[in-house]
Amino acid sequence: MLEALKEEVFYANLELPKQGLIKYTWGNVSGIDREKGLFVIKPSGVDYETLKPADMVVCDLEGNVVEGAMNPSSDTPTHAVLYKKYSEIGGIVHTHSTWATIWAQAGLDVPAMGTTHADTFYGSVPCARFLTQEEIDNGYEKETGNVIIETFEKRRIDPMEVPGVLLHGHGPFTWGKTADSAVMNAVVLDEVCKMNLFARQLNHFSEELPQRILDKHYLRKHGKDAYYGQK
Amino acid sequence: MLEALKEEVFYANLELPKQGLIKYTWGNVSGIDREKGLFVIKPSGVDYETLKPADMVVCDLEGNVVEGAMNPSSDTPTHAVLYKKYSEIGGIVHTHSTWATIWAQAGLDVPAMGTTHADTFYGSVPCARFLTQEEIDNGYEKETGNVIIETFEKRRIDPMEVPGVLLHGHGPFTWGKTADSAVMNAVVLDEVCKMNLFARQLNHFSEELPQRILDKHYLRKHGKDAYYGQK
Amino acid sequence: MLEALKEEVFYANLELPKQGLIKYTWGNVSGIDREKGLFVIKPSGVDYETLKPADMVVCDLEGNVVEGAMNPSSDTPTHAVLYKKYSEIGGIVHTHSTWATIWAQAGLDVPAMGTTHADTFYGSVPCARFLTQEEIDNGYEKETGNVIIETFEKRRIDPMEVPGVLLHGHGPFTWGKTADSAVMNAVVLDEVCKMNLFARQLNHFSEELPQRILDKHYLRKHGKDAYYGQK
Amino acid sequence: MLEALKEEVFYANLELPKQGLIKYTWGNVSGIDREKGLFVIKPSGVDYETLKPADMVVCDLEGNVVEGAMNPSSDTPTHAVLYKKYSEIGGIVHTHSTWATIWAQAGLDVPAMGTTHADTFYGSVPCARFLTQEEIDNGYEKETGNVIIETFEKRRIDPMEVPGVLLHGHGPFTWGKTADSAVMNAVVLDEVCKMNLFARQLNHFSEELPQRILDKHYLRKHGKDAYYGQK
Repeated sequence: MLEALKEEVFYANLELPKQGLIKYTWGNVSGIDREKGLFVIKPSGVDYETLKPADMVVCDLEGNVVEGAMNPSSDTPTHAVLYKKYSEIGGIVHTHSTWATIWAQAGLDVPAMGTTHADTFYGSVPCARFLTQEEIDNGYEKETGNVIIETFEKRRIDPMEVPGVLLHGHGPFTWGKTADSAVMNAVVLDEVCKMNLFARQLNHFSEELPQRILDKHYLRKHGKDAYYGQK
Repeated sequence: MLEALKEEVFYANLELPKQGLIKYTWGNVSGIDREKGLFVIKPSGVDYETLKPADMVVCDLEGNVVEGAMNPSSDTPTHAVLYKKYSEIGGIVHTHSTWATIWAQAGLDVPAMGTTHADTFYGSVPCARFLTQEEIDNGYEKETGNVIIETFEKRRIDPMEVPGVLLHGHGPFTWGKTADSAVMNAVVLDEVCKMNLFARQLNHFSEELPQRILDKHYLRKHGKDAYYGQK
Repeated sequence: MLEALKEEVFYANLELPKQGLIKYTWGNVSGIDREKGLFVIKPSGVDYETLKPADMVVCDLEGNVVEGAMNPSSDTPTHAVLYKKYSEIGGIVHTHSTWATIWAQAGLDVPAMGTTHADTFYGSVPCARFLTQEEIDNGYEKETGNVIIETFEKRRIDPMEVPGVLLHGHGPFTWGKTADSAVMNAVVLDEVCKMNLFARQLNHFSEELPQRILDKHYLRKHGKDAYYGQK
Repeated sequence: MLEALKEEVFYANLELPKQGLIKYTWGNVSGIDREKGLFVIKPSGVDYETLKPADMVVCDLEGNVVEGAMNPSSDTPTHAVLYKKYSEIGGIVHTHSTWATIWAQAGLDVPAMGTTHADTFYGSVPCARFLTQEEIDNGYEKETGNVIIETFEKRRIDPMEVPGVLLHGHGPFTWGKTADSAVMNAVVLDEVCKMNLFARQLNHFSEELPQRILDKHYLRKHGKDAYYGQK
């Protein structure tokens, strides 16, 4: 079942090491079939060199395995919570990519300091708080999803305008309309984390992008008046 | 039309990912046929893995498409403005290369701190100011070209002696006598941005290159008494 | 003798350059056959491009060569001391990997600042002291092993929970149940050293991971209640 | 003439981009035949992708071309001066490798902060001063060689114990008994420059290696009691 989606998710997972976002199996990509209400995700801890499309695991929105011989990614409940809450999300990625993880370890939001950021994220990428002991006991991975939602609601951020988040002390989650675009957003987030860190080191007074430039770059690529690309 | 130039520009575009200057489609190279007054540029947002020489778009000096099935790079008006103003430029490159973009985000000129810089750029590479709201409304990409020209005129910099610029909060543009040399200048600029950042971190008192060394290195490669290479 | 182990150790050695942990011959991997009480190690200073499984050298727990035409790694006595003391170790790796060596040169323990660390190391990775002149005279490589043991004993660290150490001014040693897992631990250590350095630079107040998150991540991958992977 | 040496020097030049030490043609390797008193060097500014062994240029110890259709590297007079002065040198390398150039731009000696350094360089790698206007006028490349010699003589450094130097504002020269070992020394120098920079950033109080450890590491690889490798 969902063979085309399995293939798409399989290739999106292979993009992670190819783009330098992960070492070994430290990451996972999923993609959803909204009509069926099922998503496909990488199995847990399997070497990318032996991974096959047929190894992808099918889960429902509660994170239960519907089809698949292997255990799904241990982060599956986080994916399930996000898919259930945000109906526009078509794909989700989790990595420990170097530069985004550095910002996550520093516990800081990633400000929009350049147009590379503005082309993809319409404002700061937030850093979500540590989970409490109670949340950990209640289901670490599920509550991770809930803390992400809490972060976006408290700050009134639209998750489709800012398709990513950092988890304090952990690393990034990104999402998009498809698994592929979620991977691309993970690449962008890692790159802007690198650029912003060194821009601040080079000039401690480096400013955030003026709002007018942020608007211009985000809106020339997204929304009804976008004119970037071949659309 | 312009098949040889299309091929040259196509291969120059492929150099960008090969040299590590771009991810995905975040860059563009163009080259001009001065006799015909037409330039050739990469189409907007097309995956480098599927790009073909025939996909290159031909434009006139107003930035209008003269031939091509696809939309040209969204930065085409910037290229057009620069070609129109500076008749010696044969090729132009725009990237978001990591280290040059870091300096652009920091809003700083790149000083000549080493001979790697002096071999290509005869003095500081300037950082151009942010565009105003009025300029953005008037045509963001065209006005980007005008702000580059303003920068070189106000500071009395010869664009053939300093074949590159940073756009504040955005990234670098470089140029050269050909598309290939514009790419090479983009590589040099990114590398000197990396070196200068860390040299200043290592020793906050790192000096700019003495004028006599800057002269020696620039002039042994450029101008009538150059003796580098096989010319 | 020990042909299967030689092959395993050979391939584990090849992983070092593949994972970017070493240049030239600056590293060595060994693996042990506990029943026979013999370990297999890379020969000293041999180019990785010409290395063959049959070149691996077999040593006993005193570090004496039992079989092999070439000299074993000059660090062989360190491996022998560690195998003799810690019966659960199945493989050992020594590298001068960039970021771990930077921490070693700085003479600092590597704190657990993120879950990338917590997935593998259950607490700080300690930095062992410089050897004294007397220890150097008494056998530099053997005493290096003894200083590692001293470090773990004084600080009451379980070497199976924290499978790695830094040697002040030198570089990392890591170990694991097999040669392969020792290599993987070397990769993780280098990566967390990079992340931690920049996290501290980005935010001088970056905290260590709260104990509850450290526990959660370490224990979901290790121990009797682990649920990561396909076990 | 000197066909075997040409081949050796050709392959040593190819190592520069392979090891990530250079971009484009920013480097050169030479090797000498001491019996004939002639050295072989890369031609100036030739693309590494089209370079052939037969393109190597043969020069005498005054830097005059003895055989070859192309201009030799513009740095040839520096090589000639060093070969003439130091009879034990068999190969010389010049690059603008990133991290060594950063230290050169910072104008600082590279202290021995780790055993990676001590395995190759027996003490600090010195940074030579800028040339004066008079020296530039007198022959920039020849005087560069003389300033290197001045640096080693003033500080009483043995060039075979410390086979490398930084030129202020420029980049490194390294040498060795052969062209290959000179390349390896260039790799080591770049790597220790990277490690030392970040070690000092991580811990501003990072010490130089104690003399006893420097002695031990240098002498276990070099000199009459060396026991590293298969010798």
